Amino acid sequence: MADPGSCNCGPVTPLEIYNQLTAQGDKVRALKSEKASKDEIDAAVKLLLALKVEYKTATGQEYKAGSPPTDNTPIANNGLPPADDGDDFVDPWTVQTGSAKGVDYDKLIVRFGSSKIDQELIDRIERVAGQKAHHFLRRGIFFSHRDMHQILDAVEKGKPFYLYTGRGPSSESMHVGHLIPFIFTKWLQEVFNVPLVIQMTDDEKYLWKDLTLEKAYQYTIENAKDIVACGFDVNKTFIFSDLEYMGQSPGFYKNVVRVQKHVTFNQVKGIFGFTDSDCIGKISFPAIQAAPSFSSSFTEIFNGRKDIQCLIPCAIDQDPYFRMTRDVAPRIGYQKPALMHSTFFPALQGAQTKMSASDSNSSIFLTDTPKQIKAKINKHAFSGGKDTIEEHRKYGGNCEVDVCYMYLTFFLDDDEKLEKIRQDYTSGALLTGELKKILIDTLQPMIAAHQERRKQVTEETVKQFMTPRKLAFDF
Amino acid sequence: MADPGSCNCGPVTPLEIYNQLTAQGDKVRALKSEKASKDEIDAAVKLLLALKVEYKTATGQEYKAGSPPTDNTPIANNGLPPADDGDDFVDPWTVQTGSAKGVDYDKLIVRFGSSKIDQELIDRIERVAGQKAHHFLRRGIFFSHRDMHQILDAVEKGKPFYLYTGRGPSSESMHVGHLIPFIFTKWLQEVFNVPLVIQMTDDEKYLWKDLTLEKAYQYTIENAKDIVACGFDVNKTFIFSDLEYMGQSPGFYKNVVRVQKHVTFNQVKGIFGFTDSDCIGKISFPAIQAAPSFSSSFTEIFNGRKDIQCLIPCAIDQDPYFRMTRDVAPRIGYQKPALMHSTFFPALQGAQTKMSASDSNSSIFLTDTPKQIKAKINKHAFSGGKDTIEEHRKYGGNCEVDVCYMYLTFFLDDDEKLEKIRQDYTSGALLTGELKKILIDTLQPMIAAHQERRKQVTEETVKQFMTPRKLAFDF
Repeated sequence: MADPGSCNCGPVTPLEIYNQLTAQGDKVRALKSEKASKDEIDAAVKLLLALKVEYKTATGQEYKAGSPPTDNTPIANNGLPPADDGDDFVDPWTVQTGSAKGVDYDKLIVRFGSSKIDQELIDRIERVAGQKAHHFLRRGIFFSHRDMHQILDAVEKGKPFYLYTGRGPSSESMHVGHLIPFIFTKWLQEVFNVPLVIQMTDDEKYLWKDLTLEKAYQYTIENAKDIVACGFDVNKTFIFSDLEYMGQSPGFYKNVVRVQKHVTFNQVKGIFGFTDSDCIGKISFPAIQAAPSFSSSFTEIFNGRKDIQCLIPCAIDQDPYFRMTRDVAPRIGYQKPALMHSTFFPALQGAQTKMSASDSNSSIFLTDTPKQIKAKINKHAFSGGKDTIEEHRKYGGNCEVDVCYMYLTFFLDDDEKLEKIRQDYTSGALLTGELKKILIDTLQPMIAAHQERRKQVTEETVKQFMTPRKLAFDF
Repeated sequence: MADPGSCNCGPVTPLEIYNQLTAQGDKVRALKSEKASKDEIDAAVKLLLALKVEYKTATGQEYKAGSPPTDNTPIANNGLPPADDGDDFVDPWTVQTGSAKGVDYDKLIVRFGSSKIDQELIDRIERVAGQKAHHFLRRGIFFSHRDMHQILDAVEKGKPFYLYTGRGPSSESMHVGHLIPFIFTKWLQEVFNVPLVIQMTDDEKYLWKDLTLEKAYQYTIENAKDIVACGFDVNKTFIFSDLEYMGQSPGFYKNVVRVQKHVTFNQVKGIFGFTDSDCIGKISFPAIQAAPSFSSSFTEIFNGRKDIQCLIPCAIDQDPYFRMTRDVAPRIGYQKPALMHSTFFPALQGAQTKMSASDSNSSIFLTDTPKQIKAKINKHAFSGGKDTIEEHRKYGGNCEVDVCYMYLTFFLDDDEKLEKIRQDYTSGALLTGELKKILIDTLQPMIAAHQERRKQVTEETVKQFMTPRKLAFDF
């Protein structure tokens, strides 16, 4: 950020430190040549040295005048001071960790400056919602938030809010991990009875990938079918393609331009790591993901009202977009959106490997047959068990790194059953093959049911969801 | 441009030369450390030295490793080699010249890489149009073009084209100079009987100025009234506000994104001089001015056809946008737009001063009363006459720097009368006061008639012009 003090978009990038350093160096030289007082020069030198330390901390390299950090300069932890435990890296396009347990989420909360979803908040959600918290909350899968208490205050006062989540349609097929935000958002929508908007960022996928516009839009439609198959209520839910809705909405583009006026290239460079070689579409895209956070982007739904607060359930890697959005919001006269962040869904091969839509073995896809599900889990799911049955019986397995157990925390609703599995696997009573079978037996019917529901989703139904219209709420 | 060889967007900026220099320096060092052949190293050093000369030519400063050119580094002639005669500077926001005769347009043609509208082209336009060329053509006011022969070929083959021009609505009132592109475009439209789209870049004005969106849109409506008052045919003309049309058009945003994918920040930095501190809205805006050059942006008018060529009459300072557009067009499967460029309309104070909408004395406004017109011309119009009547009678006046004479070349249709004025003023037979009176007598009725027509333009009429719709042409 140009002025880190005035903004909550997170700390500065190596280049920003570099630029500060260069400026500070010039200042020191100027003070010296002006024969300024010793105190003044000393203070300036001190700041210079502090900046050099900061630069080295951020990049792992010494500051060298005249050698700005390049694309290849490591940006340690998204430009933030490195975490003690080393090498977690999280941005909207990359999630990296060296640990089989996955990213250290407590540290991520500190680094992103969000708040932990603690027991007190979960209790309050249960009180306000009048029902038991979703197991994603109970199990720390949605683990971090921003301004969730504000949303609950609003609910208690009878004030409306709305939900916003989204999907980047990068291919035709989605995997089970992609369902997490939608499963949770559906629960929130049912519990609080609020409007929901779902953004399909086909423009983003066109800009980032080797895709035609037509293909990106086609992926939107195919992915929308999977989303609809999660069981959303068409009277309360609006799904939109950026490519299509931009040309249908009286409010969307106006909010995009409002955001674009208040974010500089320096800022998106700091937040997203863009470079001068990136296309201007990528550079301005963050405003397009920001705009649905403001109710006036949806004239049809909110009747032009710009004061309805937004709650965004999303995976934590999307947070940089919304830190930017929250920074801009008050400057354009809007409320900051609230957020609930989920952990990452691990790849079958383990939490430290990257899940890839192009590697069909890295996850269970919504199109997989029962046979494929069984084969993938048996063959690829990283196990926390011991090498031999004897050792396993003796020492027990490790649930913290076992991908089957992790998947069950996502998809096995029954707390008691899950706890029994954990105990039995840890003690060695439950073997890896048996644990895998439990996951197979959980996912096979779940995916089959999804496929059955998806079959019922016609082009006509998708069109209904995607038509800009008033929903079943009066504003 | 990242790759000047493959593009016709015009030469590079100091920063691009600087970056090339830095890279070339690295290459030389690498060759040396790899113990490459002497020939290879010599060739690389030769290129390095050539780049250093280029850098100095462009900036007037020595290249210094580690000191990239800053915002304060002079960009001589928009990053182009400086013209011999010194200090003309032309970009979409600044027109500067040290000469009272105005910018040297022949040199501008060479530097921009466009073509002169020569007598042969004027003759061909007259033949194809079947009528006498407009006096803006005869007098070199529209003096430069790109691909105009292609347009005439199309006309001869009975193939359609369309016209696109625009206006940045930066205030409520327009001055007479703003009418130039519209007067000429209207002539072209009548002569060739083609559709016309007029872009009101209210988003641009919001991004660049201290304006609210609402104010920028209000200026659009007020300016549209002046444009309508020029006498455009509502059945053949579509006027649109970016802020409004973006949310109404199935094709516009898609073309904006297509362009945005194919232009990098480096490119817009080179063409428009943007910096890292500019907002992302400015950085991506050039794509929004580019998109109307493609017929598929106007689904209603062209029925989805993407093969109708576009002809853009505009002042030469807008050319950078369209050099960029022409560079992108073939890469996204579209035809390059053709262009006709006009000279700048001089300020009352002389061709070397900047005309400013905020200085009401710098031009004649469309809202001026006859009295104001008279007072402004008498008081402010820069004169090419001599200091005393005696001297003037003896030595004559200088039409080349006289603003009243320049204005008459724009607004006095009668060639013979104009020529007589030139001769008499040059000989000293016509005094400055008399010349001023001729201009006053020309402009007073012209402006009054405009005001009369503008009064007839209702909100309803503007709305008609601004409604996306099929025009009186079948595609």
